[in-house]
Amino acid sequence: MAALFQKMVVAGVGLIGASLALAAREHGLVKEFVGYGRSEKNLRFAVDKGIIDSYFHKPEELPKDTDFLVLGTPVAAIAPLTKEFLPHMQPGCLVSDVGSVKAEIVRDMEKILPATMPFVGAHPIAGGEQWGAEPARANLFIGSRCILTPTKKTDAKALAKVSRLWQKVGAKVEELDAETHDKILGLVSHLPHVLVYGLVNMMNRARVNSTEVIEYCGGGFKDFTRIASSRPELWRDICLLNREAVSGGLADYIKELEKLKRFVDEGKGPELEREFALANEARRRLS
Amino acid sequence: MAALFQKMVVAGVGLIGASLALAAREHGLVKEFVGYGRSEKNLRFAVDKGIIDSYFHKPEELPKDTDFLVLGTPVAAIAPLTKEFLPHMQPGCLVSDVGSVKAEIVRDMEKILPATMPFVGAHPIAGGEQWGAEPARANLFIGSRCILTPTKKTDAKALAKVSRLWQKVGAKVEELDAETHDKILGLVSHLPHVLVYGLVNMMNRARVNSTEVIEYCGGGFKDFTRIASSRPELWRDICLLNREAVSGGLADYIKELEKLKRFVDEGKGPELEREFALANEARRRLS
Repeated sequence: MAALFQKMVVAGVGLIGASLALAAREHGLVKEFVGYGRSEKNLRFAVDKGIIDSYFHKPEELPKDTDFLVLGTPVAAIAPLTKEFLPHMQPGCLVSDVGSVKAEIVRDMEKILPATMPFVGAHPIAGGEQWGAEPARANLFIGSRCILTPTKKTDAKALAKVSRLWQKVGAKVEELDAETHDKILGLVSHLPHVLVYGLVNMMNRARVNSTEVIEYCGGGFKDFTRIASSRPELWRDICLLNREAVSGGLADYIKELEKLKRFVDEGKGPELEREFALANEARRRLS
Repeated sequence: MAALFQKMVVAGVGLIGASLALAAREHGLVKEFVGYGRSEKNLRFAVDKGIIDSYFHKPEELPKDTDFLVLGTPVAAIAPLTKEFLPHMQPGCLVSDVGSVKAEIVRDMEKILPATMPFVGAHPIAGGEQWGAEPARANLFIGSRCILTPTKKTDAKALAKVSRLWQKVGAKVEELDAETHDKILGLVSHLPHVLVYGLVNMMNRARVNSTEVIEYCGGGFKDFTRIASSRPELWRDICLLNREAVSGGLADYIKELEKLKRFVDEGKGPELEREFALANEARRRLS
């Protein structure tokens, strides 16, 4: 097939951006890949591994003929960095992102970018605790969800092109409005990170007769708290950009725990078993 | 080496009891293995797999020459079942258990059993969500902790024998008093189960514009909530037998979440990052 794009700039050659470049190259979707970032080491690694063909460090060095700009930086940097690129961009350049939070980003990007530079918000739900170009792989998106968040303003052709790209690299593409996306992801992804960070801190502080409780945290606990290995500053930004959903999720969860605590305190065996059995059943349906 | 025991009765041929029998047989620590339980199917499976040599269903059928009785039932059944066995036990029979909660069990067992039938409380920290004899394996305890909870009343020879048994099957044996055990395990094991059961239920109920949020729970969430696959009735009993520690842990955790929620609500980026970074660092030390 003909390439979808001639020159793709990956701004932030992290796990997602680098994997998208690898997959797009493998499928012949893009002709040339250029990386933007601050870490010389990471960018050089990405060139050595054939993830990108070249790179630059200053927004004003954005190649003039860039026709696809993908923002793969931490979420808080997406809109500010786009502002810096803007004076150096040409009409017709399609802009997209891979941020885990969408509403505020989509709103900002549509304000920043003129109609000649269409924006399509995207969130490929893939990756994990690792970061940088090193763990990138072309098959990262196979079978995973990629949520696009078009608005009334979104250019239909641009949307179709971005959708095609993600489908070609193996993702199951679906569309949601950005607010719905944020509410859902706030619960299923952002909230669990906060819960685990909090639990690890509590365990880390806990002492029983001067014994450090965390010394007794075994394999189960390690599996359970693996997401606490994620980068703190990324999740700080995600929580703040998706404040309402994360806060609402926390409030609901605290209520849930207060109910369970009441059942424990009052020795309510049947109620406790019913709650546990409901969860057990729901968890089985997930498998 | 000479066998430590002639005839071991495994009351409750579950993952732990069956694995202990397999490992003890492999190491020649016990000459004969007899199973007790309700499920004919599970006991027959255990005979077929060479886990036990025979089995019985009624407490009064306990072999008279049993010199090692291991209670491997759900925690709430350990003391009541011991009472049923008692009239059929001979002096010199050593009694132990593998329950995840210790203080109440140790207290009850020491009340029930005469000095001629020494009791040693034990908790091998191994296993997982699976249950029954089917997933049992001889190497289950290799490298895992086994906590013994002796009291002032505990017979020193019996303690040494049980300790030897667990060491021989590969466990790292240590001693804690039962109350300390329960406080620690209440935090590192029992509490996380309650947290995950609660989270799964909350997700299972959550709707965003009629979309079922749980449909968006991906691989990370599945890993994270794996422990919700554990048997509800077991964890109900564990929570009720270790009520104080579980309730205290819930109270502390709710406080922790309220703090994080405040940081999110008030947009306190540095405070949020500091908390996440602390957890990140503590989690790294675990790996």
